[in-house]
Amino acid sequence: MTLVMTANATVPSPRDRMVDSARVLIQERGVSGVGLRDVVAHAQAPRGSLQHYFPGGKTQLVGEALARADVVSRGAVSAAAADGADAATTFSTVLSRWRAALTDGDFAPGCPFAATVVDAASVDETLRAAAEAGLADWRTDVAAVLRRDGFPAARSASLACVLQAALQGALIQARAQRSTAPLDAVEAELLPLLRRPTTTA
Amino acid sequence: MTLVMTANATVPSPRDRMVDSARVLIQERGVSGVGLRDVVAHAQAPRGSLQHYFPGGKTQLVGEALARADVVSRGAVSAAAADGADAATTFSTVLSRWRAALTDGDFAPGCPFAATVVDAASVDETLRAAAEAGLADWRTDVAAVLRRDGFPAARSASLACVLQAALQGALIQARAQRSTAPLDAVEAELLPLLRRPTTTA
Repeated sequence: MTLVMTANATVPSPRDRMVDSARVLIQERGVSGVGLRDVVAHAQAPRGSLQHYFPGGKTQLVGEALARADVVSRGAVSAAAADGADAATTFSTVLSRWRAALTDGDFAPGCPFAATVVDAASVDETLRAAAEAGLADWRTDVAAVLRRDGFPAARSASLACVLQAALQGALIQARAQRSTAPLDAVEAELLPLLRRPTTTA
Repeated sequence: MTLVMTANATVPSPRDRMVDSARVLIQERGVSGVGLRDVVAHAQAPRGSLQHYFPGGKTQLVGEALARADVVSRGAVSAAAADGADAATTFSTVLSRWRAALTDGDFAPGCPFAATVVDAASVDETLRAAAEAGLADWRTDVAAVLRRDGFPAARSASLACVLQAALQGALIQARAQRSTAPLDAVEAELLPLLRRPTTTA
């Protein structure tokens, strides 16, 4: 059944597959640990196609992978916040999605933006900016949900920053421990902050 | 004056310098992005000394660098918690120390354990365990300060996990943005959680 559905779906191009493979591999091994050959192999793309599709080399490919990750990440927040879900419910859904990704992926996947910052922020300005763009978009979207809940703009931005930070750090701990418990702790400690707008200025 | 003091201080051995250089470079560029030659050059160590001191190769060197980072990290918490400082003051001091490290280091340095998890947790079990040991030690020490403040053991562990997560994520954001503002947001949002033990069970 799954095979039939896959066969009927739009088949991604080799170029698309390479961008997506880069995204997946960066999530698992960082930027420096992923070679271009790894991406070609993971994408089952023809040898030599990398140079054809990505004349800018690894920086171009990683940049496109981060742009793709940005779309995926915003889509996850958007889906979680659909139908007027409040910020607590939205963040809880985002955490659940990550719990599933971690357990389904044997604790290999993490945040591609965090991986890029850790490996490349101090040595590649293009990639630093691409990672920051992805992180900033997530915060913007989550802050919008908080504003919809009645939090003032500045507080919404501050809380979105802390939610992102806690999620990022929880993913690192989860992968180190091979357990989703850190995500549970973040949910237990931070959800109460989202349930009571204490200022209305 | 500084030179005289340095000359009078204990001179670190080439082996010590290499471990410390590895620690510094991992903080800035991750594990995969740091080559053994980079470490030798940074430590101004003799060529060939790496093989002599670290027959286990990169995994041994990185493992020792993480053990050193663990000592540094625990020392920072211990100093911040000295003289009976409460958890809020302790965490605030830890954040201030990171702000200084980020600005002094042009936003290059980050957490060496996070760098190791992102690059190596899914491919090197020895390094995953070494990173987890460092992360767990920090949480143990911070949880002890929370218990001293009157938080019950389980809540102390949960809060220590969230403080570590938020700090880790704030460091990633700070390096991406080249700004210490994320650490300020974490401090503003989380310190209130540490100031009122709400349960005494």
